Amino acid sequence: MLHKTSDRVRRTSKTKTRVRVVADGKIRVRPDTLATEEPMEIRLITGGERQTVAITMRTPGADFELAAGFLYGEGIIKSTDDIAKISYCVDSDLDAAQQYNIVNVELRGGREYDLRPLERHFYTSSACGVCGKASLEQLELRGCPVALPGPEVSAETLYSLPAKLREAQGLFDATGGLHAAALFDEEGNLVALREDVGRHNATDKLVGWALLENRLPLSGHIVMVSGRSSFEILQKCLTAGVPFVCAISAPSSLAVDVAREFGMTLVGFLRERRFNVYAGQERVGF
Amino acid sequence: MLHKTSDRVRRTSKTKTRVRVVADGKIRVRPDTLATEEPMEIRLITGGERQTVAITMRTPGADFELAAGFLYGEGIIKSTDDIAKISYCVDSDLDAAQQYNIVNVELRGGREYDLRPLERHFYTSSACGVCGKASLEQLELRGCPVALPGPEVSAETLYSLPAKLREAQGLFDATGGLHAAALFDEEGNLVALREDVGRHNATDKLVGWALLENRLPLSGHIVMVSGRSSFEILQKCLTAGVPFVCAISAPSSLAVDVAREFGMTLVGFLRERRFNVYAGQERVGF
Repeated sequence: MLHKTSDRVRRTSKTKTRVRVVADGKIRVRPDTLATEEPMEIRLITGGERQTVAITMRTPGADFELAAGFLYGEGIIKSTDDIAKISYCVDSDLDAAQQYNIVNVELRGGREYDLRPLERHFYTSSACGVCGKASLEQLELRGCPVALPGPEVSAETLYSLPAKLREAQGLFDATGGLHAAALFDEEGNLVALREDVGRHNATDKLVGWALLENRLPLSGHIVMVSGRSSFEILQKCLTAGVPFVCAISAPSSLAVDVAREFGMTLVGFLRERRFNVYAGQERVGF
Repeated sequence: MLHKTSDRVRRTSKTKTRVRVVADGKIRVRPDTLATEEPMEIRLITGGERQTVAITMRTPGADFELAAGFLYGEGIIKSTDDIAKISYCVDSDLDAAQQYNIVNVELRGGREYDLRPLERHFYTSSACGVCGKASLEQLELRGCPVALPGPEVSAETLYSLPAKLREAQGLFDATGGLHAAALFDEEGNLVALREDVGRHNATDKLVGWALLENRLPLSGHIVMVSGRSSFEILQKCLTAGVPFVCAISAPSSLAVDVAREFGMTLVGFLRERRFNVYAGQERVGF
């Protein structure tokens, strides 16, 4: 049983400020709300050893999900069983401004963990090369499975997703400036939504939520992101078992490559009763 | 004199594909163009030693600028004088798919380089803590100067920037999916524009261009980004001496903090003859 201290938002996800609004030459000063951006440090604790594995600029909230989703996406942990405890660091030398910005993830003992993926930004490339093809091969080497068949999602259901995502984006309403990743079932019912200033963080939070809720793999589900789809977004969805990815905006070339290689469905430009299907059209029903 | 081999785009920045367009239940298949996303590795060569310092997913094009801008933004190099040579890796064991995805930056000998910033994602935070305030302090420690006075930019000039940015976005036109960072002078004339699937890359390319052209610091100039403004965008502009930053969308809380702390002007939601001024309103003229 995973020991998890409360991850109620301790730091605010919204920041009050004052702004000068200029419209057609007229100026007025009014209160405004910004999406909070603050660094969060993820520390891994294995066998009494503590190491910092990432510092990411994030919007506070769902911090434990972010830590768990990040470690899962990087291939460090495979299930909640690998986690003994997730908690905020409460070292007495932390001042108030630093509290709740460090998340400790204690891994369960007696297991082997491969921490090499964390060094990927720094490895020398002799082993696998640096190109799109090699990036796909790395996913295969990590044992990412080809997506299972299903679900079939109707065009009408797809048309309905952008409005549902937008309605559920509470922080976006307040700040006008946040990425979102939403999980839908095949009927288009919203299951969960996470927001962050970073789009990769939003996806990590969503996957981390599913991991901590023991809902992985997310076969039979749709992930929708508020912006564009990239290699990393597709990679995170693939490792979480999501077969169907939608985005409001364009995909990159490598996002399409991942989807085609691993049998995923990738939809882009989903807005105003239209969309483009880049891969896996057999899951789109009419 | 910097030795720089040609950085004509060797890999394409656009990728052709076929897409199923679904609009109101009707399906047609048509050719489509995607923004290319491929990994690029940056290798530093110092005193005969070669090390990989970053692998970033980028859109091919302006690769040398991206490498130079990245190293400048991280505080590794201070001017073009620090660079002896920038070139693509041409090791004979690279296959075609990997060519032009590795950029070697050879630093000039007989100088000291501080490579510790590259480890920032992995350092232990005991020295400076992890919070917004500490992030600002790090910029001060790196010697980032407070922005110089000027330029004064009229509201009319600001209104004109989004259309100019959009018009110059050639890749966006083709793909509908790219971030851009543009440099304008104080009259609103476009000086340079760079595009990338990653918004940080677009800014790095722009700053790298200025560095290689010996145009730094960019005092008296405006940088406009196509999306939101974040800590990292402001940090990159600050280190390049840019006093005036505009964005089509919202800033994060920490972006506003950087602007206020370092005397920069930060404008957000610049669209349709309106904008918000979050910091440095003295540079906005009426």
